[in-house]
Amino acid sequence: MIVILKEHPNPKQLDNLKAWLNSMGLVIHESDGVNHQILGLVGDTSRVDIDLIQALDIVEDVKRIQEPYKNANRKFHPLDTVVKVGDIRIGGGNFAVIAGPCSVESEEQIIGVAKAVKAAGAKILRGGAFKPRTSPYAFQGLRATGIELLLKAKHETGLPIVTEIMDLSQLNLFEEVDVIQVGARNMQNFEMLKELGHLRKPILLKRGLANTLQELLMSAEYIMSGGDSQVILCERGIRTFETYTRNTMDISAIPALKTLSHLPVIADPSHATGRSAMVPPMALAATAAGADGLIIEVHNDPQHALCDGPQSQTPEEFTKTMEMIGRIRGIVAQTN
Amino acid sequence: MIVILKEHPNPKQLDNLKAWLNSMGLVIHESDGVNHQILGLVGDTSRVDIDLIQALDIVEDVKRIQEPYKNANRKFHPLDTVVKVGDIRIGGGNFAVIAGPCSVESEEQIIGVAKAVKAAGAKILRGGAFKPRTSPYAFQGLRATGIELLLKAKHETGLPIVTEIMDLSQLNLFEEVDVIQVGARNMQNFEMLKELGHLRKPILLKRGLANTLQELLMSAEYIMSGGDSQVILCERGIRTFETYTRNTMDISAIPALKTLSHLPVIADPSHATGRSAMVPPMALAATAAGADGLIIEVHNDPQHALCDGPQSQTPEEFTKTMEMIGRIRGIVAQTN
Amino acid sequence: MIVILKEHPNPKQLDNLKAWLNSMGLVIHESDGVNHQILGLVGDTSRVDIDLIQALDIVEDVKRIQEPYKNANRKFHPLDTVVKVGDIRIGGGNFAVIAGPCSVESEEQIIGVAKAVKAAGAKILRGGAFKPRTSPYAFQGLRATGIELLLKAKHETGLPIVTEIMDLSQLNLFEEVDVIQVGARNMQNFEMLKELGHLRKPILLKRGLANTLQELLMSAEYIMSGGDSQVILCERGIRTFETYTRNTMDISAIPALKTLSHLPVIADPSHATGRSAMVPPMALAATAAGADGLIIEVHNDPQHALCDGPQSQTPEEFTKTMEMIGRIRGIVAQTN
Amino acid sequence: MIVILKEHPNPKQLDNLKAWLNSMGLVIHESDGVNHQILGLVGDTSRVDIDLIQALDIVEDVKRIQEPYKNANRKFHPLDTVVKVGDIRIGGGNFAVIAGPCSVESEEQIIGVAKAVKAAGAKILRGGAFKPRTSPYAFQGLRATGIELLLKAKHETGLPIVTEIMDLSQLNLFEEVDVIQVGARNMQNFEMLKELGHLRKPILLKRGLANTLQELLMSAEYIMSGGDSQVILCERGIRTFETYTRNTMDISAIPALKTLSHLPVIADPSHATGRSAMVPPMALAATAAGADGLIIEVHNDPQHALCDGPQSQTPEEFTKTMEMIGRIRGIVAQTN
Repeated sequence: MIVILKEHPNPKQLDNLKAWLNSMGLVIHESDGVNHQILGLVGDTSRVDIDLIQALDIVEDVKRIQEPYKNANRKFHPLDTVVKVGDIRIGGGNFAVIAGPCSVESEEQIIGVAKAVKAAGAKILRGGAFKPRTSPYAFQGLRATGIELLLKAKHETGLPIVTEIMDLSQLNLFEEVDVIQVGARNMQNFEMLKELGHLRKPILLKRGLANTLQELLMSAEYIMSGGDSQVILCERGIRTFETYTRNTMDISAIPALKTLSHLPVIADPSHATGRSAMVPPMALAATAAGADGLIIEVHNDPQHALCDGPQSQTPEEFTKTMEMIGRIRGIVAQTN
Repeated sequence: MIVILKEHPNPKQLDNLKAWLNSMGLVIHESDGVNHQILGLVGDTSRVDIDLIQALDIVEDVKRIQEPYKNANRKFHPLDTVVKVGDIRIGGGNFAVIAGPCSVESEEQIIGVAKAVKAAGAKILRGGAFKPRTSPYAFQGLRATGIELLLKAKHETGLPIVTEIMDLSQLNLFEEVDVIQVGARNMQNFEMLKELGHLRKPILLKRGLANTLQELLMSAEYIMSGGDSQVILCERGIRTFETYTRNTMDISAIPALKTLSHLPVIADPSHATGRSAMVPPMALAATAAGADGLIIEVHNDPQHALCDGPQSQTPEEFTKTMEMIGRIRGIVAQTN
Repeated sequence: MIVILKEHPNPKQLDNLKAWLNSMGLVIHESDGVNHQILGLVGDTSRVDIDLIQALDIVEDVKRIQEPYKNANRKFHPLDTVVKVGDIRIGGGNFAVIAGPCSVESEEQIIGVAKAVKAAGAKILRGGAFKPRTSPYAFQGLRATGIELLLKAKHETGLPIVTEIMDLSQLNLFEEVDVIQVGARNMQNFEMLKELGHLRKPILLKRGLANTLQELLMSAEYIMSGGDSQVILCERGIRTFETYTRNTMDISAIPALKTLSHLPVIADPSHATGRSAMVPPMALAATAAGADGLIIEVHNDPQHALCDGPQSQTPEEFTKTMEMIGRIRGIVAQTN
Repeated sequence: MIVILKEHPNPKQLDNLKAWLNSMGLVIHESDGVNHQILGLVGDTSRVDIDLIQALDIVEDVKRIQEPYKNANRKFHPLDTVVKVGDIRIGGGNFAVIAGPCSVESEEQIIGVAKAVKAAGAKILRGGAFKPRTSPYAFQGLRATGIELLLKAKHETGLPIVTEIMDLSQLNLFEEVDVIQVGARNMQNFEMLKELGHLRKPILLKRGLANTLQELLMSAEYIMSGGDSQVILCERGIRTFETYTRNTMDISAIPALKTLSHLPVIADPSHATGRSAMVPPMALAATAAGADGLIIEVHNDPQHALCDGPQSQTPEEFTKTMEMIGRIRGIVAQTN
């Protein structure tokens, strides 16, 4: 960490600052620039509050040299983390597609979709029981019943399941859920992240729609500081000025996260684009960019989906998309 | 709501769509454009899921004519809502400044600041007990103890208090808290919004850093659909490409929200800018733009604030800022 | 185009509006909503100024149904445009990689790179002669000499060349240049676009870093309204809040533009990411998403590049990247 | 400037780097961190190409300590620049409002508006002769005729005039124009900036809609490096995800630019919001935040404005707005 001092700092304040930095176990390297004196802090700065130092009257600016995350940082854990979901592996060369409807609607629907996506090659079933909706008047999901139906589909097909938690009070319902999804809107629900870190269960952590890669990794760090190392990162589109797509899918987040972190990275082309026709090309793009998996919405009857319909593919379309994904993955995997 | 059909829609699907729209009580006005047939939906469309219609194969685009919020909509409630916090009023011509430290740190600190901001003219005391921090290694607030200390300061000074809730499990600690703050990161924590709507207590709802004005009003609608009409909206900066300030304070949100809604609107120049020196000009700008109040961080010793230090003003600076705010408000209030 | 009127519009103003709309050859369909009267305008609305109508006192909002571009619109030109650059074809199933250094620095450098990229399979040589630089103190390009050197490289290798124009006063230097590039910062330099439309020469039009897809297509429309139909669109990253990459490469722009328009679409992973290590995965992603080509920076000595060095690949790296691009393209091309 | 090296840098490359840095007259301070070796560069780094250093294999990151602009930097020119436009002064405590129609349409219109805005207290007349329009089918301005009409209005009323240049080929028409406006889309038209810097004429430089404050100051630096110090900076809204307003007016840019630079800063609430009703509150906000002036669109007949109508105020509305601006300015000016 580099602390850039203002011109002519108050000597007493500077002494206080140095003493405080030393008390945190940091060694200080001083350096004089043309206009600015600079303090280089050497030691573990991940616990140093950059905002606090920046607040000081004598400080002009502070710049971080080291990333503030440790458990999620590839520098300290060079080998890929492999997340295990039942018999399925994600990361470290293992690629898996998660598929299913936006919302669980009925037993017939979820079991029908589960069988279809399994036949097409999906490894994990997704389905929303608790649905975050912008409007209080929109369908909010089948909730507890939705999770029961997902478990039925799991038992019927053998596919592990992933579904989203929206509040910690729902946690008891997630016991048999294989992967708990933290949605984009809860990426910085820190109380939830802390609690989930104690579960020792795979967590699918979606990037918030206005969150940086560093913030995503800090949220993974919250979970991992509780002891859970089974975190899957998910790029699902960020909010920009462009309105043609629902969000702007940041494909570059995939190679970036895989450089910065050892955690597996998957991508969600369905939510990122909000347009069914764009799911196949964006699924292929994410695969080509090195994603460890994808999460794709599939619906047996897009005309009657209760939510997020525009993103869904039919099983027929999904089967074709899976075939193409497999071929692109084949090429990328050879060279890894 | 306007539904724009694709060219040559499948007649059976079109019949199904029309039947479904009619079943929701909507009247359909059909109109033929040069390339597109258009359906105009007349009736209460706030319950219609725009995404669902957009999903249909035969639909090219859907455009909303009416806003999807009703309780928060000025069109249906032309008169300003006045929120009552003890003897204090906010909205409808009543202007109030909320002030206090970022984090509650000690009894001495919070009571000291409370007395100072009261003397300077603040009407409500703020202070963080539960702190949302990007890093799990940063100070997370005094939590339950912090609320106790805030209540002591309330009893000592008579100032009502506002503090942030981070998870519903903390709710029992908020019984004597006068205004519950929903932070930017929880603006779309819908389970929390629903629950808070049953409390009949003033809620300070901060705009999420990547949320539109319409989304903010939809979150207010969640609270109001639970029965609580005492919602204060708060602009606190949005995330943009500019990095000089922590966020970009969207002053235009103030007149915009006051046009769209009857709810009071306040502004938080401290979090929006993240720079102490910019708090006074931005506080004056928000006041000049017609805000119903401000929320400003004040610390008795900015050199040792435990969090968010760079935003804090000292009581001396705050007193000067309050004097200027009062003069600007005087001019604006005359013409309202 | 849909015009939504305010409640209780002034009848005389409404008559004036209708008369004016009729005078532009538009037919008006009237429709009454619950709160709003709506006018549906039928006819050629691409010449209607949406802002002007929105200005009227009696108008609440205006929504476009038809895209405001015609020449660039796939609806009116369903077949892919194939741009011809010498013997090279781009679009309509033809894929081409453009490669070369950021800046032309010397005869030896540009000829060396040209030979290397040609050997690796590139079809067109790029190189900057006029360089748009944020700082007046940074290297501004070899300018006229740079174009001379590019032409030498063209004659030496047979590769057609593409280079950027920064001001119309430079136009006489571009006579032998095969493709004129309009950079991101000039995407809305409308005087330049108009002039270039009279040249009947392929134009490589880069998306501005804060421009929507519709604005990009409107800029193409400027060129095409001058008569030139040989426009290549280029996605090169947009500005977002993320700072890890220089810009955020909007891969979804590729399938979106190919749906909206018949013009070929290429992608520039070098400028979009600003990081050499991210060029290969993003080049593959763009190819997988259906791009008609790529533009990649290649430098024979990245240690001494005079500008934009971080994006450049060495010829060795580029050769490996080209091999992978070819394999991905092979899969994508089969299914088109 | 701080150069952070990767772990275990190649010693020969490191020696080359140090030799090159020394050759630019920079002194190097070396410092060892836990994971990274750091080079602190002392001397004039404004001419160092940060991208070039970042490109080196052995470099992890580069961080600037000093701003890369010098002529526009308040650190080197602590006193406010006062721009002189005829008898009018802007900056250094002098406040001026520029007003007029979006487009010049006729002699009657421009002289009528000129008289009206002069009567209301405006000091400079604005009016568009060359109009940057997104669509080639929209009105492009009266061009040369528009400038003639502006000059007539100048001679009739004595108001100096400001109007936008769109291409250097138009420069000969601007001889009698008092202030040349560089529009947002041309903020990084570097060839134009260089040329304008030789004119010794006040330049009104508008912030690009996706440009940072530093980029705006670098564009001012382009003009100033040509010798012209009469630059007026203008905030006119940036592009964000919010769609209620045309752009998001970044009021915080006003105090920020006045801290970073000595140049006067004005604000354009008309273009920033695109909504006539929001012009008065945003004009007051900008004034309260310390702007040195405003630029406001005024039209004598908003129903028939040929462009950008929604932003325009009538002379009656403008007169009321001016009265309020004067009162707010009175308070702000006292304390400066």
